[in-house]
Amino acid sequence: MGLGEFERIDRFFAPLSQGAAGAFGLTDDAALLPPAAEGSAWVVTVDALVSGVHFLPDDPPDLVARKALRVNLSDLAAMGAAAYGYTLALALPRDLPNIEGWLERFAGGLRVDQQQYGIHLLGGDSVSTPGPVTLSITAFGTVARGRELRRSGASAGDDLWVSGTIGDAALGLKVLQGDLSTTSADTGPLVDRYRLPQPRVGLGPRLVGLASAALDVSDGLIQDAGHIADRSGVALRIEAAAVPLSAATRRCIDSSDALRHDALTGGDDYELLFAAPPSSRGAVGEAAAAAGVQVTRIGRVEEGRGVRVVAEDGRTLEGLERGGWNHF
Amino acid sequence: MGLGEFERIDRFFAPLSQGAAGAFGLTDDAALLPPAAEGSAWVVTVDALVSGVHFLPDDPPDLVARKALRVNLSDLAAMGAAAYGYTLALALPRDLPNIEGWLERFAGGLRVDQQQYGIHLLGGDSVSTPGPVTLSITAFGTVARGRELRRSGASAGDDLWVSGTIGDAALGLKVLQGDLSTTSADTGPLVDRYRLPQPRVGLGPRLVGLASAALDVSDGLIQDAGHIADRSGVALRIEAAAVPLSAATRRCIDSSDALRHDALTGGDDYELLFAAPPSSRGAVGEAAAAAGVQVTRIGRVEEGRGVRVVAEDGRTLEGLERGGWNHF
Repeated sequence: MGLGEFERIDRFFAPLSQGAAGAFGLTDDAALLPPAAEGSAWVVTVDALVSGVHFLPDDPPDLVARKALRVNLSDLAAMGAAAYGYTLALALPRDLPNIEGWLERFAGGLRVDQQQYGIHLLGGDSVSTPGPVTLSITAFGTVARGRELRRSGASAGDDLWVSGTIGDAALGLKVLQGDLSTTSADTGPLVDRYRLPQPRVGLGPRLVGLASAALDVSDGLIQDAGHIADRSGVALRIEAAAVPLSAATRRCIDSSDALRHDALTGGDDYELLFAAPPSSRGAVGEAAAAAGVQVTRIGRVEEGRGVRVVAEDGRTLEGLERGGWNHF
Repeated sequence: MGLGEFERIDRFFAPLSQGAAGAFGLTDDAALLPPAAEGSAWVVTVDALVSGVHFLPDDPPDLVARKALRVNLSDLAAMGAAAYGYTLALALPRDLPNIEGWLERFAGGLRVDQQQYGIHLLGGDSVSTPGPVTLSITAFGTVARGRELRRSGASAGDDLWVSGTIGDAALGLKVLQGDLSTTSADTGPLVDRYRLPQPRVGLGPRLVGLASAALDVSDGLIQDAGHIADRSGVALRIEAAAVPLSAATRRCIDSSDALRHDALTGGDDYELLFAAPPSSRGAVGEAAAAAGVQVTRIGRVEEGRGVRVVAEDGRTLEGLERGGWNHF
């Protein structure tokens, strides 16, 4: 005989709400947010993850929890917001083997990342499903009102920047799916990047006032660049050779050039892609250094529309425009 | 060839965000909440619904949408909060027949209730699932800071009140499941109550300053009464004969007394159960009249713990304590 709903909440989830007074220990119908600081606004984002779609059914529950949190933290960072807390909706299969062991590990993953990012669980709902594990997190942060980073502010002449490295997670997923048979590379770091995104929470808020537009790369570099181009009414030119690649990804591409396409369009990077005027180059570099994150100029904003990826010889690379992960 | 994710968002969901400037037309990574009024706090609640668990697979999509919204609005009302908006996470089966027709009707249901309740869609995530339709709504409202209605404030001597009528939705579910074969009653109103809760959004905010404790009845009157008893450290005495029943439910019970148990423990009522001192009786009546909702005194708060349901002859009704809907 397993624990009931309320015992499960008490045991696994209520402890995660300690530290947020307005969560009332998850004992009430709703939670209260504290007042946003003077001049600040609450920012809200939501992401849903489904087993077999956004993570693999045998991914460890603690990593599933942390990935779900981190993709939301990445959205907050992309708006320039500092994270405060989150609510969780969790649907678990009735026949999940060792459901309490699963919950223990899942909650353990949340706990680790709550400490790492200084956030708290504010509320939740836990239900059963005849389908796969499904979870949805709504995350809350704050940003100086009117200074949030949008997708719409890029201007011709701006530099185009990206944080970290691109393509690791996409190749990591191929490793997990058995579709990457390169023997030359240590693929562990790629798998880690797929399973555990590194949201750029230190960088995003530091780009407020510097970046003219920003988003996080979740659907693939090219497709997400298209969102900035569309919303800003500009064209983006990306120098393929400038896109930062990890050593592991570079080795994969060296052994199979077709993987370059996967790296540029694969998604799950959770890096920040942003535009900033050339006059901010120094300040962007300082922000990145303060955040402990590498940033790379990969191109520029031009008049026009759409995204163009060019090779070192100036030739436009074709077939990338429609790349990217479409959830449907 | 169906619409892609972004076309679907543009077509079905972005129009629902008009009217909330901070939603940015669902084109950005996150949404901004406006400043809460001076002295007010943001209140957050989340509820998840799964097809086959919380609604029936052949329930009309517009009613599924409205039910999902309304169970959240009910939570806000139970805290005394006025609703502002919501985010939506929606997981749809890839093989859902006529998925765009389904979305059209689903979004239509949201639109109807947005207008009815004066709220807006603030953000969302739309994903595919190999499982059943699953949705999670996080709703936002505001309440005077420090005056929110909690489950924990009931004192011995308080009256116990409930809004509307109890048991209709539970019997409506039995009708839909073919488990209610009474021929004497028109069961249409019962089915309506199951499919379309009536959140007491007019009453909840008016109980601020009057009610000592409150919640909404979602898991069954007796079980939810137990939450107030537990959190307030009191006993609740409920007079069975005083519990308000609709004419349809009364006719069902008259023809089969066993249905009384289902009515008291069945859940999905989404009525407000609250305690208030006898000195507030007049004001509670005025609040209910202003909200256009019936309220009924069904018992009182006493020293002790737990919930006791007594018949007209003073006998304690047994077997109700563990009633109620448990989502696991």
